[in-house]
Amino acid sequence: MKMGSFFMRASSALKRYPSSSNLLLLCTLSFSGGGVVAYSESRSETEHPIVDAGVVPKKKVVVLGTGWAGTSFLKDLDASRYDVQVVSPRNYFAFTPLLPSVTCGTVEARSIVEPVRTLIKKSKGEIKYWEAECVKIDAANRKVFCNSNINNLVGRGEFSLDYDFLVLAVGSQVNTFNTPGVKENCHFLKDIEDAKRIRLSITDCFEKAVLPSLSEEERRSNLHFVVVGGGPTGVEFAAELHDYVQEDLRNLYPAVKDLVKITLIQSGDHILNTFDQRISTFAEQKFTRDGEVCSVPHGLIVWSTGISTIPVIKDFMEQVGQGKRRVLATDEWLRVKGCKDVYAIGDCCTIDQRKIMDDISAIFAAADKNNSGTLTIEEFQDVMDDILLRYPQVELFLKKKHLLDFTSLWLDSQGNERKEIDIEGFKQALSHADSQMKSLPATAQVAAQQGTYLARCLNRMDQCEENPEGPRRFRGTGRHKFLPFRYKHFGQFAPLGGEQAAAELPGDWVSMGHSTQWLWYSVYASKQVSWRTRVLVISDWTRRFIFGRDSSRV
Amino acid sequence: MKMGSFFMRASSALKRYPSSSNLLLLCTLSFSGGGVVAYSESRSETEHPIVDAGVVPKKKVVVLGTGWAGTSFLKDLDASRYDVQVVSPRNYFAFTPLLPSVTCGTVEARSIVEPVRTLIKKSKGEIKYWEAECVKIDAANRKVFCNSNINNLVGRGEFSLDYDFLVLAVGSQVNTFNTPGVKENCHFLKDIEDAKRIRLSITDCFEKAVLPSLSEEERRSNLHFVVVGGGPTGVEFAAELHDYVQEDLRNLYPAVKDLVKITLIQSGDHILNTFDQRISTFAEQKFTRDGEVCSVPHGLIVWSTGISTIPVIKDFMEQVGQGKRRVLATDEWLRVKGCKDVYAIGDCCTIDQRKIMDDISAIFAAADKNNSGTLTIEEFQDVMDDILLRYPQVELFLKKKHLLDFTSLWLDSQGNERKEIDIEGFKQALSHADSQMKSLPATAQVAAQQGTYLARCLNRMDQCEENPEGPRRFRGTGRHKFLPFRYKHFGQFAPLGGEQAAAELPGDWVSMGHSTQWLWYSVYASKQVSWRTRVLVISDWTRRFIFGRDSSRV
Repeated sequence: MKMGSFFMRASSALKRYPSSSNLLLLCTLSFSGGGVVAYSESRSETEHPIVDAGVVPKKKVVVLGTGWAGTSFLKDLDASRYDVQVVSPRNYFAFTPLLPSVTCGTVEARSIVEPVRTLIKKSKGEIKYWEAECVKIDAANRKVFCNSNINNLVGRGEFSLDYDFLVLAVGSQVNTFNTPGVKENCHFLKDIEDAKRIRLSITDCFEKAVLPSLSEEERRSNLHFVVVGGGPTGVEFAAELHDYVQEDLRNLYPAVKDLVKITLIQSGDHILNTFDQRISTFAEQKFTRDGEVCSVPHGLIVWSTGISTIPVIKDFMEQVGQGKRRVLATDEWLRVKGCKDVYAIGDCCTIDQRKIMDDISAIFAAADKNNSGTLTIEEFQDVMDDILLRYPQVELFLKKKHLLDFTSLWLDSQGNERKEIDIEGFKQALSHADSQMKSLPATAQVAAQQGTYLARCLNRMDQCEENPEGPRRFRGTGRHKFLPFRYKHFGQFAPLGGEQAAAELPGDWVSMGHSTQWLWYSVYASKQVSWRTRVLVISDWTRRFIFGRDSSRV
Repeated sequence: MKMGSFFMRASSALKRYPSSSNLLLLCTLSFSGGGVVAYSESRSETEHPIVDAGVVPKKKVVVLGTGWAGTSFLKDLDASRYDVQVVSPRNYFAFTPLLPSVTCGTVEARSIVEPVRTLIKKSKGEIKYWEAECVKIDAANRKVFCNSNINNLVGRGEFSLDYDFLVLAVGSQVNTFNTPGVKENCHFLKDIEDAKRIRLSITDCFEKAVLPSLSEEERRSNLHFVVVGGGPTGVEFAAELHDYVQEDLRNLYPAVKDLVKITLIQSGDHILNTFDQRISTFAEQKFTRDGEVCSVPHGLIVWSTGISTIPVIKDFMEQVGQGKRRVLATDEWLRVKGCKDVYAIGDCCTIDQRKIMDDISAIFAAADKNNSGTLTIEEFQDVMDDILLRYPQVELFLKKKHLLDFTSLWLDSQGNERKEIDIEGFKQALSHADSQMKSLPATAQVAAQQGTYLARCLNRMDQCEENPEGPRRFRGTGRHKFLPFRYKHFGQFAPLGGEQAAAELPGDWVSMGHSTQWLWYSVYASKQVSWRTRVLVISDWTRRFIFGRDSSRV
């Protein structure tokens, strides 16, 4: 808070400019001097590591991306241990869950972003940030090649950075499923720019529709808003737009208020089908359903049908032998498979959980201390903890079958108890565990948790080198250095418009209706990245309640 | 204030959608029904006037532009008397004095705009607004041809409107003085879009300058900000930018903080030379002055060197025989010279004050009741009031010479008093009056006063037809219908950065320093067009004091 600094500023203002009285045709404010020093400094930092005599240079960590994953990684990383450089084409972090609200001006774009430089300022210059896009990763030579998007200014925009550890947090792109015309005619809703474009387009649709030169059919089609994709983003946008129309636009454009139509198209059976069944049913009841086919003309289409891998990652996957895969794969420690010291977090990757059946014999051998060829209950329980850590699907499997006590494993098909189990029994007992494996959703929550997890790992690199905390290695000896990443689901929201929302809460709870909307408000306010955005978002909500939304084309 | 309406909304939300349970692949929110009615309504309103049996159709007033002039006209016009249609390419009014603040994020763009539709909502649909640009005025046929800028939607964007009265409030464009390269390489600062572009460019300059791939020269040139034009806008922008750098950017970009330079180029002798001499001197003392020539490379140029006529007005001037003029001329009643029922207000025109010497004989003849060929003091005083109304320069002339009593007119060169004056004496007495004529500055204040004046004239059209309120016609008989427009100068501000401002106050007062900055804050807050913008602007100022300005590229 620099409230107090105002007076300081004010008083310093007089001193600020040396005064002089000779009249010339040119005035200059200038803060020159010391520039060279400052520059040679920044140069040395960026182009070769500072090597003090005797001191080992810090390891270089390069982070690509400043979304949920990248930002939470940076927030938790102990920047004093590494020489950290961040590259991202956007010089801000955006609180993406509120993007649908930005499209209708319920919240201002600027209220949900925080400049990266403000976030890293706390690191006292330990963390460097470059506004650029990574165009190529050279895994073999541990280099990334970057390119600035600012081309109207002097100076080469291309540069490369060496890394000891690379953190990929570049996110994903919208998946058009190669549908022709989508790129040209549809809006996406993945970042701030998209949301701002949509907001302008909504105003365009209404301003064009009321022009005296249009026929009614033309008015209708300009006011037909189509949303493709029944996921959270699509549904939230449809709901926001509906409120915008009902609460604000109807009054501002009375002549066409009855021509507005919003269509939500979903290829699956249900909208919000990633949510609890009860919520998706509730949501569907909120939306009228009819069988109309959407070949009708439209004013605006928003395309939000899932994500795909961005080119630079596709290219990187080729390099590390993942060319065949659809998504970049990491192991349970978020290390990219097929190369060293590269980590991936957030939407750009998926965790490739190891099947227990692939290791089953190794596990059995490791468990069978006395090489009797069979496991006693003690031997079994001895390895079980490590199994539960290393293969989380087993826990899900046991939970699901309510076998948290393993007794039933010790009954044969006839239900008679047995003293020991052989490899076959062991396999059989766990044979269905792998069916419980499921990949994590591409949500902010997962990305943030992965960022935090990875930061903590890097902070404790040396310490865990000495005394590893992970489960034992069934193939090979010793233990894994770290515990594998575990996702904790804290629930999710689906605002449904008209001050209604649905929430999936921890445990098996769901909550729906008006109260939930207030829960939504409070949770989203509390989750803001900084006090600045928190204050702005809340004041935006207040402003909307009092004055409604602003339809100016600004 | 629709604070209360929230609960209404919330409770109505449940009713809003009829629920149904059959599962289909398509969901639709729809507010159809009654569309045709609504449309035929709007059509009849727009394409031909409503003609009730026996009732004379309302006169059609077409207003071009929604800036200061147009908006203040609309605010004061009695919309029930006319069929009013407004055409403007921008669907909002912008509080332009705060544009320089928008370039640096001291105030958000959205905080200083008010949607036209909100402004005209009070008229209960009496006033229609079309978001389009007037591309051609057909004075002969009393038609304007308009064109929507929204081309990516269906429907013809071109339409024409008939008028009985046309109000030109289209403003002006930046004057490049045909300097090559200006259009391509310079930023202007005339509207919201300009200000937003400048804000992004400032961030670009800093983000590019810190990239590791740049040489120091390149950094320096990217951080050299050049302002061309020492008028209020240019100086205010330079001051705002200086504060932005000093208070925020230095901390966010420490590596290059000492390379920043702001250069203000002015072709006249002094900056702010439209202001009181004391202020322009004070301002110059606030800026260091040096003789450096600005052929140096730069990151950003803002060009603000005065205004010129926009094409559609140029074309219109040809039609009404003003082709030779630089600016559209109106008479003292804001009627465009050379055509009927067309008024012009704001920056797009200038008042062509009639010279008293052109009418001097007619005035003398009118004054000389007894045709004695000479004027007695009674005869003279009898016409003087009308002269002062019709020829404001006379009042200025008398004020200046402290001749508010006309006695000295009645002294001959030897200082002997005379009983009567002949035409020669009369001419001689007023011969220098016309030298006091000066054209009004192109400011928001003038535009707003003209809009209000014109609205009041149109409101009292019939009433002043019967008993005219204007001065007598010296050529011809009777009186002028209205009093001519008179500008009242309420002073002006020049914020100078570092919480300093200069103010020119009514009378001969000037005020400078920190206290003035607070005067500036309070006046600008009070001048806001709506409570909404007032609240937003003040909260923006507060936000900046607490959190500083936001440098995100949003």
